[in-house]
Amino acid sequence: MEPIVVTYHQDSRPTLKRPILVEGLPGVGNVGKLAAELVVDQLKAEPFATIHSRYFPPQVIVDDSGIIALVSNRLYLSRQPGPHDLLFLVGDYQGLTPEGQYELADCVLALAKGLGVERVYTLGGYGIGRMVEEPKVLGATTSAALVAEMRAAGVLFPEGEPGSGIVGASGLLLGLGRMRAIEGVCLMGQTSGYFVDPKSAGALLTILCPLLGITVDLADLEAKAAQIDVITSRIREIEGGETSQRSREDLHYIG
Amino acid sequence: MEPIVVTYHQDSRPTLKRPILVEGLPGVGNVGKLAAELVVDQLKAEPFATIHSRYFPPQVIVDDSGIIALVSNRLYLSRQPGPHDLLFLVGDYQGLTPEGQYELADCVLALAKGLGVERVYTLGGYGIGRMVEEPKVLGATTSAALVAEMRAAGVLFPEGEPGSGIVGASGLLLGLGRMRAIEGVCLMGQTSGYFVDPKSAGALLTILCPLLGITVDLADLEAKAAQIDVITSRIREIEGGETSQRSREDLHYIG
Amino acid sequence: MEPIVVTYHQDSRPTLKRPILVEGLPGVGNVGKLAAELVVDQLKAEPFATIHSRYFPPQVIVDDSGIIALVSNRLYLSRQPGPHDLLFLVGDYQGLTPEGQYELADCVLALAKGLGVERVYTLGGYGIGRMVEEPKVLGATTSAALVAEMRAAGVLFPEGEPGSGIVGASGLLLGLGRMRAIEGVCLMGQTSGYFVDPKSAGALLTILCPLLGITVDLADLEAKAAQIDVITSRIREIEGGETSQRSREDLHYIG
Amino acid sequence: MEPIVVTYHQDSRPTLKRPILVEGLPGVGNVGKLAAELVVDQLKAEPFATIHSRYFPPQVIVDDSGIIALVSNRLYLSRQPGPHDLLFLVGDYQGLTPEGQYELADCVLALAKGLGVERVYTLGGYGIGRMVEEPKVLGATTSAALVAEMRAAGVLFPEGEPGSGIVGASGLLLGLGRMRAIEGVCLMGQTSGYFVDPKSAGALLTILCPLLGITVDLADLEAKAAQIDVITSRIREIEGGETSQRSREDLHYIG
Repeated sequence: MEPIVVTYHQDSRPTLKRPILVEGLPGVGNVGKLAAELVVDQLKAEPFATIHSRYFPPQVIVDDSGIIALVSNRLYLSRQPGPHDLLFLVGDYQGLTPEGQYELADCVLALAKGLGVERVYTLGGYGIGRMVEEPKVLGATTSAALVAEMRAAGVLFPEGEPGSGIVGASGLLLGLGRMRAIEGVCLMGQTSGYFVDPKSAGALLTILCPLLGITVDLADLEAKAAQIDVITSRIREIEGGETSQRSREDLHYIG
Repeated sequence: MEPIVVTYHQDSRPTLKRPILVEGLPGVGNVGKLAAELVVDQLKAEPFATIHSRYFPPQVIVDDSGIIALVSNRLYLSRQPGPHDLLFLVGDYQGLTPEGQYELADCVLALAKGLGVERVYTLGGYGIGRMVEEPKVLGATTSAALVAEMRAAGVLFPEGEPGSGIVGASGLLLGLGRMRAIEGVCLMGQTSGYFVDPKSAGALLTILCPLLGITVDLADLEAKAAQIDVITSRIREIEGGETSQRSREDLHYIG
Repeated sequence: MEPIVVTYHQDSRPTLKRPILVEGLPGVGNVGKLAAELVVDQLKAEPFATIHSRYFPPQVIVDDSGIIALVSNRLYLSRQPGPHDLLFLVGDYQGLTPEGQYELADCVLALAKGLGVERVYTLGGYGIGRMVEEPKVLGATTSAALVAEMRAAGVLFPEGEPGSGIVGASGLLLGLGRMRAIEGVCLMGQTSGYFVDPKSAGALLTILCPLLGITVDLADLEAKAAQIDVITSRIREIEGGETSQRSREDLHYIG
Repeated sequence: MEPIVVTYHQDSRPTLKRPILVEGLPGVGNVGKLAAELVVDQLKAEPFATIHSRYFPPQVIVDDSGIIALVSNRLYLSRQPGPHDLLFLVGDYQGLTPEGQYELADCVLALAKGLGVERVYTLGGYGIGRMVEEPKVLGATTSAALVAEMRAAGVLFPEGEPGSGIVGASGLLLGLGRMRAIEGVCLMGQTSGYFVDPKSAGALLTILCPLLGITVDLADLEAKAAQIDVITSRIREIEGGETSQRSREDLHYIG
C-alpha cells in the first residue's frame, strides 16, 4: 500500500474558478477544526477526495449506527458565485510523525496545485495559557502584501508572536506552499489552550468569512461556547476566582 | 530483506470454499487471541503461512525444549463441511508502529483477497475499567446489513461505543478491507482491561461459533477464568471489597 | 547514503574453512561483548569488514589521541588450524530501532552466508535480578540436535527460560539465520543485569572456547571481576547485607 | 517530496579556492551556532543554498513582520583573499532522528565534496556540568597530523575527553567526511550546559579565526555574555553561593 492513498469522490480534475484552499485540522483548542467544519456544513460543500495514510493512527472511527470508517483527512468542494471556488481540508488527525506531516502537506499541495489553487488559508488556535474573553485573531503569511491585506481585514500581527513559530499542517501548508508558489495565510484564534474553544473558532470565522466572500451562522458555535463558559465559571467559583492548573487539565479532557 | 516476508507451508493459492478470515492477535485482555487460538487448536486447523516482519520486535521465542522461533504472525486453514472454509490469523505481536500496523494489515488483506475471502471477523476486548461478571459482546461492522445480521446473533451496538474507535489490527482489517470490498465485523468482548480475560473470550466464542457454523468446547477457557476469579476475589477481600488501582496493576502484570 | 554501508579491509570473498561466526555486541551486562572482544584480542583476529549505518546513533567515538571514529560494528577473521575458521562480530552499538535490528542482522547473515558460514554462536547475558556467585550458562538453539550437543558441553536448558525470549542481535541472528539454513546457538551467561559482568563473560568463555577449539587466558576478565566484587561488597556493607535498588542503579552507571 | 531538498541561491557549482566548511548548528549551549552565525554576519557571507527536509520539525518560523519561513539549514559562502574560501552551515535545527542526522550530514558532505571542500571545522559546546569562568577549547580530529596542528593553535586534547564521543552533526560531518577523504576538526568550547553560552562561543572564535585567516569583532558576544553573567550572579546570591538545579533549569529556558 502506498504511504498516502487519495480516493476521489468525483472528477479528480474539475474545472474550478481560481480556487482557495481552507485547512482546519485538529490542533490547539480544535479552533481550526471547529471553524472549518462549520463552514463545510453550512455551505453544504461536497466530498471531493478522501486521504488515508499510514502516517495516521491505525484506527477506525465507529459511528452511531455501528459502522466503521478508517481515519482520514477529507477534501470538500464548494463552488461559489464569487470569484473563488472553495476547497476545504478537514479530518480526524494530523500526521503522527514529522515525516508524515511533511508528506501529507506535500500531497495536499500537489493536489491543490493541480486544481489551480492560488491561495491557502490555514486555521488554528494560538494558546496563551489563560482564559480570554474576547479572542483576537493573529496572522502569519507568505508575503508582505498579504500581511497588509490581512491587517486591513482585522488580523493582528504582534511583533514576536507566535515566538515558537507554527507547528503542523497550518505551518507546513504555508512553508511548502510557498515553494510551489501558492500564497498562504495562517489565521490563529487566541485560546487558553486548555480545552476545545468554539468562541475562538467564532472569532476566527468573523474574520475569515468576509475574506472568502461567504456568510455563515455562528449560532451553533455560540451555543457550544456558552456551555463551556458555564463549566469554566463553575470551576472558577470552586477555586475561588482562579482556575487552578488541575481543573484546567480536567477541562482539557472534558473538552 | 523485505519489510514483510510471507512463508507458505502449503500451496499458496489453494482452492477454498468462500473463505472467512478470523483475526485474533494480542490486544486488550488478550480476548481475541485467547478466542482465536482455542478455535485453531480445537479445529486442528493447519498452518498455512507464517509472516515475519521488521515491524515486529527483534525477538525470538524459546520453547520448552530450548529451540527458538522468530516472532511472527501465522495463518491457519480449516476446511469446513459448511459453506465457508476458515482462515485464522494469530500471532505473538501486532505491528509496533502505525506504519507497521498498516503494512501488515494490508499484506494480510492482499493475501486474503487472493484466496477469495469474502468476510473478516476481527476479535478483541473492550476495556471498561471495572470487573464484569457477565461480559457482553459489542460489535462494529462495515455495513448496515451486517449490523442487522450481528444484532440478530446477539451482538450489541450501543450508541457512542466504542467512543475512541478501534485501534490496531482489529480496526485496520475492517477499514482497509472495506477498500478492497471485503466486508468485516469486529466483535469485542467486554473486559476490565486489567488482565488476561478468558471469560470474555468465552462470551465472544458463544456468539462467534454459531456464525462460523462450528462448535468448540469452552472448558479450557472456563477453567482459566475460574483461576483468575480466585485471584481477583482474594484481592477484593484484602482491599475491603474494592480492587484498588495498585492491585489491578499487579494483576495486569500477573495476567 | 545506503542505510547500511559495509567496508572491507581485505578480500571481501576469501576462501575460508567451514567458518563459524561468533557475535558479541553490547547487551545485558555487556557479557557477550566482553567475551567476544577478549577472544578477538587474544587470537589477534584481523579486521575483516566495518559496518556503518544510520541505524546506529549519529555519533563518533574519540580515542585517547583525539582521533575520531564513526560508531560501527566490525567483523574480525581468525584462520584456525582446526576444522573451522572463525569470524567475530563486535561493535559499539546494536541497531537503535526494530527495523535497524532486522536490517543489520540480515546484512551480517547475507555476508556470512556468502563466506560459507555454517554455524553462528551469539553471546549474551541473562539478567536474573540478583547477584550470582557462580554464573551458569544457558542456551537456546535452532535444532534439537544442537540442544543435545550443547548440553554435552555444559550448557543448561531450563524449561521456560528465558521466558521473555531473546531480544536483539543475539536472537535475530538465530531466527533469521534459520531462514537462511545457518544453524545457531545463543549462549547466555547468568548476570544480575545491574552492571558490566566480566565474571559472567568468563563463565561463558569456559563453555565456548572448547566448542571453538581455542584456548584463551581469562586473567584479564578475572581481574576486572575482582574489581567489581570489591565495589559490590562495599555497597552490601553500607546497605546492611542487601544491595538496594538505588545502589544497584548507581553501579549500573558506574559499570 | 524528496526527504531532503536543496535549493541553490546562486550557481550551484561555483569555482572556489580550496574551500573550508564551518558548521555551527544548534547544540549544547548553542556555542557552535552563536560562533558560526557571528562569523557569517561579520563576513557578510552570501546565502548559497537552503536545505529543507522532513527530518526537521514540521514547523515554520515567523519573523517580526509576520512572514513565515520553513525551518531549514542554510549554507553561506564567503570568498576570501587568503588561500581558502569559506562555506558556513547554520540553521534552525539538526535532524530529529538518527536516520535524519546521517542523511543530512551525508547530503552536506556530498555537496561540499562537489565544491572541492578539503577540510571541515565543526563547532560545538562541551558540557561540563558547572559554571566555567575561562572556557577552554577542546578538539577532536580525523588524523594525528591535525591533532598536532590544532594543539599548536591552542586547542586542548585531554585524554579520555569527550568520553561519550561527539553526537550529532559535529560528529557525523567528521566521521562521514573521513569516508569521503575530507579531513575534519571538531572544536568544542567548554560550557556549563545549562544555558546559551556566548562566552564559550567567544573562546571558540579566538581559536578558530586565526585558523581561518579572518578577524571578527567579539563585542556582541561579550555583551551577551555579560548579560548572562548578571543573571547567574543574581541566582547565586539568592541560592547562597551555589546555583541550584532548579535555577539552572530556569536559566536554561531563559537562555
